Amino acid sequence: MSTYGGIDLGGTKIQAVVVDEDNSVLGSARRPTPTAGGPADVARELESALRDAAVAAELDPPELAGVGVGTPGRVEDGDVAQARNLPDWEGSFPLGPTLSRALGVQVRLGNDVQVATAAEFKLGAGRLYDSLLGVFWGTGVGGALILERRPWRGRGGAGEIGHMVVEMDGARCTCGRKGCVEAYAGRGAMERHVHRLVEKGRKTKLFDLMREHGRTRLTSGVWARALEHGDKMAQQLIDRAVEALGAGIASAQNLIDIEGVIIGGGLGVRLGHPYAKRIAEAMQPHLFVDSQPPHVHVAALGDLGGAVGAALLLRSEG
Amino acid sequence: MSTYGGIDLGGTKIQAVVVDEDNSVLGSARRPTPTAGGPADVARELESALRDAAVAAELDPPELAGVGVGTPGRVEDGDVAQARNLPDWEGSFPLGPTLSRALGVQVRLGNDVQVATAAEFKLGAGRLYDSLLGVFWGTGVGGALILERRPWRGRGGAGEIGHMVVEMDGARCTCGRKGCVEAYAGRGAMERHVHRLVEKGRKTKLFDLMREHGRTRLTSGVWARALEHGDKMAQQLIDRAVEALGAGIASAQNLIDIEGVIIGGGLGVRLGHPYAKRIAEAMQPHLFVDSQPPHVHVAALGDLGGAVGAALLLRSEG
Repeated sequence: MSTYGGIDLGGTKIQAVVVDEDNSVLGSARRPTPTAGGPADVARELESALRDAAVAAELDPPELAGVGVGTPGRVEDGDVAQARNLPDWEGSFPLGPTLSRALGVQVRLGNDVQVATAAEFKLGAGRLYDSLLGVFWGTGVGGALILERRPWRGRGGAGEIGHMVVEMDGARCTCGRKGCVEAYAGRGAMERHVHRLVEKGRKTKLFDLMREHGRTRLTSGVWARALEHGDKMAQQLIDRAVEALGAGIASAQNLIDIEGVIIGGGLGVRLGHPYAKRIAEAMQPHLFVDSQPPHVHVAALGDLGGAVGAALLLRSEG
Repeated sequence: MSTYGGIDLGGTKIQAVVVDEDNSVLGSARRPTPTAGGPADVARELESALRDAAVAAELDPPELAGVGVGTPGRVEDGDVAQARNLPDWEGSFPLGPTLSRALGVQVRLGNDVQVATAAEFKLGAGRLYDSLLGVFWGTGVGGALILERRPWRGRGGAGEIGHMVVEMDGARCTCGRKGCVEAYAGRGAMERHVHRLVEKGRKTKLFDLMREHGRTRLTSGVWARALEHGDKMAQQLIDRAVEALGAGIASAQNLIDIEGVIIGGGLGVRLGHPYAKRIAEAMQPHLFVDSQPPHVHVAALGDLGGAVGAALLLRSEG
């Protein structure tokens, strides 16, 4: 039986898995994404994470039929460019060949969000649908579309639900534009917002909880704990994120009228069903055909979806 | 050679054409859409408009191979429901059978915006593209999608570019919701806005121009003339419409990344290229891949596109 490696390269963590042909996870490993250095340093961490997962699966990397990587930025064959959430990765870097040489196995690259959406479509919460929108709510807000059972990429740039405009002259987004969904709902934008509010003298437990749990950023876990503690600022910012996600996804729905919406990503998975339900409720007032909303689900593959989806890259046209 | 009838049922006017197999217009006629009465009265005006177009083409309606009708509202086989821009047309009315009996010829119905978009795709400004978004800027703001050379309707409700949300808690829309593109750019919403501003004592030439030209509503021609006269209020409201259209279409682009955008509808066609260019400029700051904007064109078939597209209904699956 063939085995495959899959790596999800995220803005905060690298998740690696080794799976069999039925997509059962034989081994997995996780490492933080480097915040300094450059693409070559990130590639070394990807290699290490995959080696750890292979050890857990009691395999050597060259025994794998191949390794798939879901990565942010623009993927062209084996190159990755404009991975702006990663350190010093604006230009193009030959990630595929570099990793292939290091591991001694073929490597295929795919866009992280498309890979995770394909995994939910084939194996997860999107199995029942022919058309769906994956929404990955984490450091940024990524998205990908499946229409009539095939990925829809347009001319290569489709799926950017996080950069749909929900306020024409609204909050400044991580991308430099104004009023995007991500400007309200992205964890990066939210963390900057918290800093500004604290500078103005507002109180929050967010940073205490961050330090208590040994974090240097407001991770999804920190946000979840702050909500459990009833932290007012956390509640307000998450409410605002839910409103923006609701408006953006409803806008998308009014345009393309798909069957299912899958909410994934660090925050999406960590906050889970109650917040997917709240996003569905926030969509409702904006839906043009409000009698027929799309089905909204939390990503069923959870944290491992991106890596399992990356392993699928070896067995499809992508 | 076969000949076909086509009727575009709009919120303000009914346009009928008779075309040959090459879609050359042999005769055309136009009538105002009834503002009182009900579906049966509208059907009678459709019949009269088609008869006038047939007379101009020197044909009798029963000689036609069929008549296509592009209509607002929800189309199910021969029935039309929820045509809210038309008088007393909330419920279902058997428009197809009624018109077929009256004219002595087979009748096919299609959604007005989908029909006009298909016409631009097959014969007009969309000929060069495999994927496009039709935006019909008139009484409302309608839209329709062509993806990979086929109409994309989702579960039947796709294409509602006019009801994408550009301001989360924004202006009240004709549809009852808040912050839709149509709340800023629809001629209906704009006319109500003018009334409110005039009640507050603001000055405008819009109503004088309306009366001078024998109109009872602020038609696209009235708006165009007010702009030519340098009317401040007209300029401000059209600027606001252009901003909302730019944000909405850019949002759509960020999600689906299509090749072409066709701007049609009463205002779109009347204001023409300079305003299509302004809409493209208003999109630019919101485009996530701003180095690769879609091509933006005015509908090439102009006012007749909807009717010519309706005649195409007889020769395709829709």
